[in-house]
Amino acid sequence: MTKNALPARIVDEAGLTTLRPISQGAEKWLFRPITCLDHGFVYMCDYMGNDHSIVQAANVSFGRGTKKVSEDDTLIRYLRRNMHTSPSEMVVFKFHCKMPIFVARQWIRHRTASVNEYSARYSKMSNEFYMPPPDELRRQSTMNKQGRGELLTDDQCEQVAEILGDTYRKAWDGYHSCLDMDLARELARIGLSVANYTEWYWKIDAHNLFHFFRLRLDPHAQKEIRVYAEAMARMVKDAIPKAYRALEMYTLNAMTLSEMEIAFIQKHPGVLMTEEELFGAYLPSVDHNEREAREFVEKMKKLSLVKQ
Amino acid sequence: MTKNALPARIVDEAGLTTLRPISQGAEKWLFRPITCLDHGFVYMCDYMGNDHSIVQAANVSFGRGTKKVSEDDTLIRYLRRNMHTSPSEMVVFKFHCKMPIFVARQWIRHRTASVNEYSARYSKMSNEFYMPPPDELRRQSTMNKQGRGELLTDDQCEQVAEILGDTYRKAWDGYHSCLDMDLARELARIGLSVANYTEWYWKIDAHNLFHFFRLRLDPHAQKEIRVYAEAMARMVKDAIPKAYRALEMYTLNAMTLSEMEIAFIQKHPGVLMTEEELFGAYLPSVDHNEREAREFVEKMKKLSLVKQ
Amino acid sequence: MTKNALPARIVDEAGLTTLRPISQGAEKWLFRPITCLDHGFVYMCDYMGNDHSIVQAANVSFGRGTKKVSEDDTLIRYLRRNMHTSPSEMVVFKFHCKMPIFVARQWIRHRTASVNEYSARYSKMSNEFYMPPPDELRRQSTMNKQGRGELLTDDQCEQVAEILGDTYRKAWDGYHSCLDMDLARELARIGLSVANYTEWYWKIDAHNLFHFFRLRLDPHAQKEIRVYAEAMARMVKDAIPKAYRALEMYTLNAMTLSEMEIAFIQKHPGVLMTEEELFGAYLPSVDHNEREAREFVEKMKKLSLVKQ
Amino acid sequence: MTKNALPARIVDEAGLTTLRPISQGAEKWLFRPITCLDHGFVYMCDYMGNDHSIVQAANVSFGRGTKKVSEDDTLIRYLRRNMHTSPSEMVVFKFHCKMPIFVARQWIRHRTASVNEYSARYSKMSNEFYMPPPDELRRQSTMNKQGRGELLTDDQCEQVAEILGDTYRKAWDGYHSCLDMDLARELARIGLSVANYTEWYWKIDAHNLFHFFRLRLDPHAQKEIRVYAEAMARMVKDAIPKAYRALEMYTLNAMTLSEMEIAFIQKHPGVLMTEEELFGAYLPSVDHNEREAREFVEKMKKLSLVKQ
Repeated sequence: MTKNALPARIVDEAGLTTLRPISQGAEKWLFRPITCLDHGFVYMCDYMGNDHSIVQAANVSFGRGTKKVSEDDTLIRYLRRNMHTSPSEMVVFKFHCKMPIFVARQWIRHRTASVNEYSARYSKMSNEFYMPPPDELRRQSTMNKQGRGELLTDDQCEQVAEILGDTYRKAWDGYHSCLDMDLARELARIGLSVANYTEWYWKIDAHNLFHFFRLRLDPHAQKEIRVYAEAMARMVKDAIPKAYRALEMYTLNAMTLSEMEIAFIQKHPGVLMTEEELFGAYLPSVDHNEREAREFVEKMKKLSLVKQ
Repeated sequence: MTKNALPARIVDEAGLTTLRPISQGAEKWLFRPITCLDHGFVYMCDYMGNDHSIVQAANVSFGRGTKKVSEDDTLIRYLRRNMHTSPSEMVVFKFHCKMPIFVARQWIRHRTASVNEYSARYSKMSNEFYMPPPDELRRQSTMNKQGRGELLTDDQCEQVAEILGDTYRKAWDGYHSCLDMDLARELARIGLSVANYTEWYWKIDAHNLFHFFRLRLDPHAQKEIRVYAEAMARMVKDAIPKAYRALEMYTLNAMTLSEMEIAFIQKHPGVLMTEEELFGAYLPSVDHNEREAREFVEKMKKLSLVKQ
Repeated sequence: MTKNALPARIVDEAGLTTLRPISQGAEKWLFRPITCLDHGFVYMCDYMGNDHSIVQAANVSFGRGTKKVSEDDTLIRYLRRNMHTSPSEMVVFKFHCKMPIFVARQWIRHRTASVNEYSARYSKMSNEFYMPPPDELRRQSTMNKQGRGELLTDDQCEQVAEILGDTYRKAWDGYHSCLDMDLARELARIGLSVANYTEWYWKIDAHNLFHFFRLRLDPHAQKEIRVYAEAMARMVKDAIPKAYRALEMYTLNAMTLSEMEIAFIQKHPGVLMTEEELFGAYLPSVDHNEREAREFVEKMKKLSLVKQ
Repeated sequence: MTKNALPARIVDEAGLTTLRPISQGAEKWLFRPITCLDHGFVYMCDYMGNDHSIVQAANVSFGRGTKKVSEDDTLIRYLRRNMHTSPSEMVVFKFHCKMPIFVARQWIRHRTASVNEYSARYSKMSNEFYMPPPDELRRQSTMNKQGRGELLTDDQCEQVAEILGDTYRKAWDGYHSCLDMDLARELARIGLSVANYTEWYWKIDAHNLFHFFRLRLDPHAQKEIRVYAEAMARMVKDAIPKAYRALEMYTLNAMTLSEMEIAFIQKHPGVLMTEEELFGAYLPSVDHNEREAREFVEKMKKLSLVKQ
């Protein structure tokens, strides 16, 4: 596993000539890693297609030839608005990523991708474990069973760092002692923690990557995987800017109103209630599920449809 | 739909500079259509990766850096021999294809691909129907319930051509009359036959394309889809020559011996029987299934393990 | 292919004992076909799981044992509201369906399903072609490039019926003449139209079936496939009533507001405009795309946020 | 997570009546766990279909109705011999499994399955870590870079057990101290090792499960995942005995000869060489790749085609 920091760009920039469609925004990011967490990174190492490939794939359905690029934007927005997502499968990205195992375990749940991962059966793991910085050491959220809340005290932060550091050292020393006795690598590694770093190549098409973004850019995603999603989103935003902008407009920054929410707004046309009134009035619509009612109030606030 | 014959190459050959891996063999084929059947074609319109991308993906598993290209061949063969197919998912091809609907219906059964097809709901179909040439007009096979056997007589060939021609004309005239009455396109087209041409973009990774080849290059595949498989195989052979050669060695040109076949050979070491003796002696091994016994005799003939 | 009408229920109702989870609503529908179009049908021929299987799968994530069934509803709604769709993959349905080829061609685009289709290479097709009833013979929509608009005149309806009838007869006679000459079935069938009926077994999990419903219950789906989606939805509604109700609440009957729509509502809190005012005021938000602006007005009407 | 040993069977055996196809072999195994490793298990918790479902799905292709069950066997063998695997997708199994994280990480690579896993973000992990028994503590294989060779000495075994035990205790104590400080669960768990147990529901169709068996029953698979594959294979063998037997005959116990191996046998008809002669004579066929030549010698030995 690559132990040292990656250089700013890991190829020389000469390049070769191709007849394939080019994305200048993707070229800019090729082999240019973004550092993630304390020892991780992600960089784009190959890609296929650009915004216009999406348009072209859609146009074969419409029986149209290639049109003016100026119209690409309208069509790309139309496609996303109407969930015609198959044309965006024609764009593909390949990333080289290095991340802690617990991040890899969440990531791999996205099945519609191709993966080649470093194997601890074949090769020696490296002495790199994720150590969360103090400003990430937060209490269990009281609102969200899977999230983080307030910061720990400085004392507690030090204690956690010490505990994790000790655990990592113990595991690493044990790993080495086992290897020294020539224990098979596939067994020696089982004491290493899920904070240990692994790496892989990951190839995915834009449609499925956008679904990954939808779930992993979300504030409910664990912070440590969000960092990787954000790094890739930054690259993809440059690589297929029109498609990414449409994703923001109609998905990432959109809001879905449920059947009951629509019915409630319908029945109170133009009436602005306070948050409290709204909460109480809406509650019966959702069988008195307070969580769902609170979510509705949040949406109404975002729409400025509450009385101040 | 593109009505006229495609030009020899449908882009100018200037090209742009890219930092991505290049396959010179693939570049050669980009936008260079191969004609298939009477009105069809297939050409490669984009690709990602090359033989070395497969090696690189495998090497991340092995924890190795990039090695000498001279060793790629050994590794690629090792991977295929041992069914380590995931590294070949890192190579992707995109084709633009035009084919009769009945061919498209067999093709689409390969689910691990991305497709954007011409839509008869949006657009007008074209007056192009597949007319089999006389040397394809064969009788129902007596051996193979889904295959073709002997040629028809010349007279019969003429009759078939006339029948199909009439059917196509009738369907086409009807389609037009319906469109003239402004019947919705999605209904007007339902009288068109499965010999009518459609077209699509098709994107697939090398692993899944190889599986397509395995099934569709096979003599049991319908001739009309085999033509497309052969055209694409010709391109892919140039694009990733080492991976394609390994596919031939260990899959396309390989032979699988069943448990019973192994046991039979084992029990008769070095004894050469005539075909007839072999058939009779093997029959009990497969519960007297004559078809399976004949298949065994064929394998033994191929291995020169029968007495002449 | 089954030529005659299916009996009301194609098994005797004895049944056997199983330790598996049961859905009484699914049992009710097993082998009970719903007729679709003129010669088609769909019936459920197997299933796995029920509403509680979804809850149980979610609870393994939460580290909970099985709870009171009374709480299933809350959890199922929570899962859908938050796009936690993987638990619904634990429920599976298998249908036997018979439909025109052009319907099958749209249907098969849903790749995350298992299909075994009748083969025209192995077996003879039957003389059944879809003949749209007069009240389906509509003009090309002027609003929607892939839809239907006004009815044809009675005269035109008769003409269309005659044209299609003639086309089907011609194709069928030709098919038979070719078979009589012993032309291979795989070639003889190529003059048959996409209105010819085929049949298949189709197996899909509830998550992917819900996605199918989302696209194929939509008014923009072609009427002829919608009929099948509606038939299956009727069955699934009984089989997993809680999950289906949640699908309605948060997906089928929901509304998505885009980033620009949210921003517009935000900026005009509590102001009701007429449809026209709204259209004009919103247009700049979407780069003067009239189609998108009209869609916004429709949403605001549905929410009663327009001035009458 | 279920902490205590599972009872012999975790449901009462009453059962309910269903109209669905039944597999008596599967019923026998429902909710009857097989213990795997020191704290793991696997049991079947649901299934769909039986051997006859595979036949029925194939018969829809052949345009046949349901035939005598006595012919099922012939057809099932025909299907597997010819790689017609889609009918076996009509059979589905669902298992509840508990295994160490490093096993789960290999398992999840099989993407064509549905998974719901215990979440360490929502819930507390349990104090269960895989401790390999002494007879599994083997040296790194010298032949196989990912395998195990000879046993360690008794002394070394004790040392390894001590090292792993210490590592697990350290990690567990640290985990608890972090939870006591109310650190978010999603962070507190990152020091736990990949030997820690997790659990999931896993649903897969028979075709993809057979592929899993092919890879994970193989002697090259890590022993710890093979244990789970073997447990499930035992159940599936009873659930769909004909299909499983065909898998053995034509896949698990079969042998594939490469193009070069076929050519070599062909050229030396009936000549038996010693192992050494064979190795030397074959070597040029594979560009002097010794590994591949040794594999050939092994195959010839299995076929009794070497001189003793």
